[in-house]
Amino acid sequence: MKQKIEQYYQHLKEQKILEGIDALLNWDQEAVMPAGAVEFRSEQLSYVSKKHHEISTDKAYVSLVNDLYESRSTLDSVDARSIEVSKKNLDKSIKLPTEFVEEAAKATSLSHQAWLDAKSKEDFSIFQPHLEKQIELKKKYANYIDSSKPIYDVLIDDFEEGMTGEKIDAIFHNLKTELKSLLSKIKSKEKTGEFSKFKFETPKVKEFIQFMTARIGFDFNRGAAGEVHHPFESSLSPNDIRINMSYYHKDLSSSITGAIHELGHGLYEQNIDKKYHHTDLSAGVSLGIHESQSRLLENMVGRSKAFWNYFGNLMSDYLTFEPISPPSTPLRMTLGGEIQVENLVNDLNIVKPSLIRIEADEVTYNMHIILRYEIEQMMLNDQIKISELPEVWNSKMKELLNITPDKLSTGCLQDTHWSIGAIGYFPTYTLGNLVAGQLWNKFQSENPNFQTELLEGDFSSYFNWFKENIWQHGSFIKPNDLVKKVTGEELKSEYFIEYLRSKYL
Amino acid sequence: MKQKIEQYYQHLKEQKILEGIDALLNWDQEAVMPAGAVEFRSEQLSYVSKKHHEISTDKAYVSLVNDLYESRSTLDSVDARSIEVSKKNLDKSIKLPTEFVEEAAKATSLSHQAWLDAKSKEDFSIFQPHLEKQIELKKKYANYIDSSKPIYDVLIDDFEEGMTGEKIDAIFHNLKTELKSLLSKIKSKEKTGEFSKFKFETPKVKEFIQFMTARIGFDFNRGAAGEVHHPFESSLSPNDIRINMSYYHKDLSSSITGAIHELGHGLYEQNIDKKYHHTDLSAGVSLGIHESQSRLLENMVGRSKAFWNYFGNLMSDYLTFEPISPPSTPLRMTLGGEIQVENLVNDLNIVKPSLIRIEADEVTYNMHIILRYEIEQMMLNDQIKISELPEVWNSKMKELLNITPDKLSTGCLQDTHWSIGAIGYFPTYTLGNLVAGQLWNKFQSENPNFQTELLEGDFSSYFNWFKENIWQHGSFIKPNDLVKKVTGEELKSEYFIEYLRSKYL
Repeated sequence: MKQKIEQYYQHLKEQKILEGIDALLNWDQEAVMPAGAVEFRSEQLSYVSKKHHEISTDKAYVSLVNDLYESRSTLDSVDARSIEVSKKNLDKSIKLPTEFVEEAAKATSLSHQAWLDAKSKEDFSIFQPHLEKQIELKKKYANYIDSSKPIYDVLIDDFEEGMTGEKIDAIFHNLKTELKSLLSKIKSKEKTGEFSKFKFETPKVKEFIQFMTARIGFDFNRGAAGEVHHPFESSLSPNDIRINMSYYHKDLSSSITGAIHELGHGLYEQNIDKKYHHTDLSAGVSLGIHESQSRLLENMVGRSKAFWNYFGNLMSDYLTFEPISPPSTPLRMTLGGEIQVENLVNDLNIVKPSLIRIEADEVTYNMHIILRYEIEQMMLNDQIKISELPEVWNSKMKELLNITPDKLSTGCLQDTHWSIGAIGYFPTYTLGNLVAGQLWNKFQSENPNFQTELLEGDFSSYFNWFKENIWQHGSFIKPNDLVKKVTGEELKSEYFIEYLRSKYL
Repeated sequence: MKQKIEQYYQHLKEQKILEGIDALLNWDQEAVMPAGAVEFRSEQLSYVSKKHHEISTDKAYVSLVNDLYESRSTLDSVDARSIEVSKKNLDKSIKLPTEFVEEAAKATSLSHQAWLDAKSKEDFSIFQPHLEKQIELKKKYANYIDSSKPIYDVLIDDFEEGMTGEKIDAIFHNLKTELKSLLSKIKSKEKTGEFSKFKFETPKVKEFIQFMTARIGFDFNRGAAGEVHHPFESSLSPNDIRINMSYYHKDLSSSITGAIHELGHGLYEQNIDKKYHHTDLSAGVSLGIHESQSRLLENMVGRSKAFWNYFGNLMSDYLTFEPISPPSTPLRMTLGGEIQVENLVNDLNIVKPSLIRIEADEVTYNMHIILRYEIEQMMLNDQIKISELPEVWNSKMKELLNITPDKLSTGCLQDTHWSIGAIGYFPTYTLGNLVAGQLWNKFQSENPNFQTELLEGDFSSYFNWFKENIWQHGSFIKPNDLVKKVTGEELKSEYFIEYLRSKYL
């Protein structure tokens, strides 16, 4: 048995090497690669996917995993759980023909570049055939995996085990009602922010963000910061976690909150216990849990008064708040020549329907997700033609947020997800918000002094509590079990709604 | 036959995919990867090397190449030459056990990181065991390939086909004498430069260099600029050429001339005819020819008056020449508040023994190469112990340039080459200078108006002549044949010596 376990980890090691290479090829395509290289890159990616699929469905490996899975009750708990995860992945991959995997990888790399191109040229027709291809590939995929289930259920299960369209419908239905009611009450307090009235030098913004992320706890000896079109975190190996930021959004606030968001993902990945590194438990357990960590750090911590009481002054060591044009009335944020932390925090927490999801406030953010979820269902079930997407998008925006995109790049071409085949992925963002609400409630009750500590830039109780309760476990504990273990309750949306209510009403 | 050719290119495609991935893993290790990730990265690199070795010595491929090689006289000239190159590579790789290839790749990645660490800590003992390992691996390698030849001859043949230690001894002996005589005459004209008296903002330097490299002809749609400790060019695919610069050298001049140098390599790789992309002729033909392109652009063009008459004013749009401390006498380079191009060019052409090879002037540069060549021979032939390297280095510096390094990072730890197993590589730099001298002579005789065109920033005759005569051919024409074809003569050192004489005496 011991020998089999060793052989199993030997196989896994090869898979992990290829996964790391795949992550690097993708990371580089986003962060550095010149546009003209996309054909060759798509061949490199396709090759790696093909190899990965070959070795992870290789006969020796399959029988090893199946044998060990049968005997899992006799194994050490880490080995047993790793094999459980491998078995689950295996049962899926074995159903996919290698040619399909290869085709999908190649199509995705090309589609991603087409999306970049379409977005920069504001031309949907460049992206349309690629999105059609992605939808077709997803349908094929779902058919290979389990043709008896709704397509959406097959897709979302890859990101959030056990989740279904039906469950999401129920959660989103309730949430939509609550958010509408909340939004109607908040509206009266609406203000216009001032962040976009200042200009900043990108290199200085980078320096400040580097300082801030390190200060909160990112380990730059085991991670790096990349610059990309659309922020994301990626793991090239357990000691190479990349938090990738965008510094070109319309204002400083999105650069900063975006960076704090990716930092939340990065801290999770960097603090998984070493003992899981060689197992199939070496990453965050699900996208919902992952997103809870990024959203919690971004919103509950990173938009708080205490946080900016500490970082506000430090920020002015790096950045000069220079108005783009002379303001007609003095700007609240820099009254008396100094940054006014309270006004800055107000601006970070303005609730107002906006076009871009990643720049949205905590309340309307979830409307953006509901919109995407509803459109995904329509595309997968042929309720709309892909050519109609821009139109459908705009009418949904009108319905949910009562605003209309002025162009494609702020409308249906804003997100990278569909271009890389991440369909069924968006709902995990809102699940993450719900988990964040529930964890935040628990964390605060167990760390009543955190707000005071934060004023001094002391992140230790945050870091320790989340490392202890969430991060270290990697994929060892299943998402539902983890939420229950930490908070004593099943996941429910009440905590998140309550958090929004008490903050904004 | 046609089918065999197709199969051959199919095999080659897989090799090229792995070579591109290998180049990316190495590029990223230099440019982005955090130090803590080196163990995992070395496993990724080792895996790719192993796979590459497996497929490039795979039975089907071997018999395909051997068969086609036998029939090469009946083939199209491109196919025939590609097969010739593949056969040459194959005859070497087939002699290497896979375990050796894997071990060497892993050792090299670790050794490289140890070198970075040793250099930054000024501690030779960190690097010593790794260099010992590299020397041991090189001896083993030479023994596998051809135990009847001197070790050095086996090693240099990988970089410069047909070159031997004996030939280099002869060239370097003559060159050393000529350079000594030249240096004794130039000395009286020696001045101290002013570049190091100014400070510049790195982001602005980057912007200027980006502008300048694009202006000369680098295609950023098919290439990118990276930031690294030690400048180099690398090719991730024919449409992804990376020129990697360092902006942290002691002064602006090394950042700029270093960038022009890598640009020379990059232009060569970017302008290889498309028809070679899928063949084994898709890269520059030898290191000597490659280096001729980088040294020619850096020195003959990039340090010339005409070049700076054009770029000098443009540079001041990007950079402010601000003295580090108030100068005791007005600085020549910024007299009257404006950049004085003539003084700037003088400073770019000061001949003066210095510690760092990549910052050396055109004349003393070759002494740095001779030093490294002599030490490599001593290390490979056990004439010195690796522990004695710092001492031997310093005494050679005294002998050849009459100066002594003050620390390891400006002495024997300055170069990355030995850390990555590139031993037998340095002489190609000086060969490159000789080729550059001969090509420059020919180019000028055929383009008598170039200096005038350059004043206006017109690079077209340079770009067209080198594309036509050198770049487009990739590896189709052998290095010696190429020099002869273009200049009508065998390679000789006289042109280079004459170039130095007429410029500096």
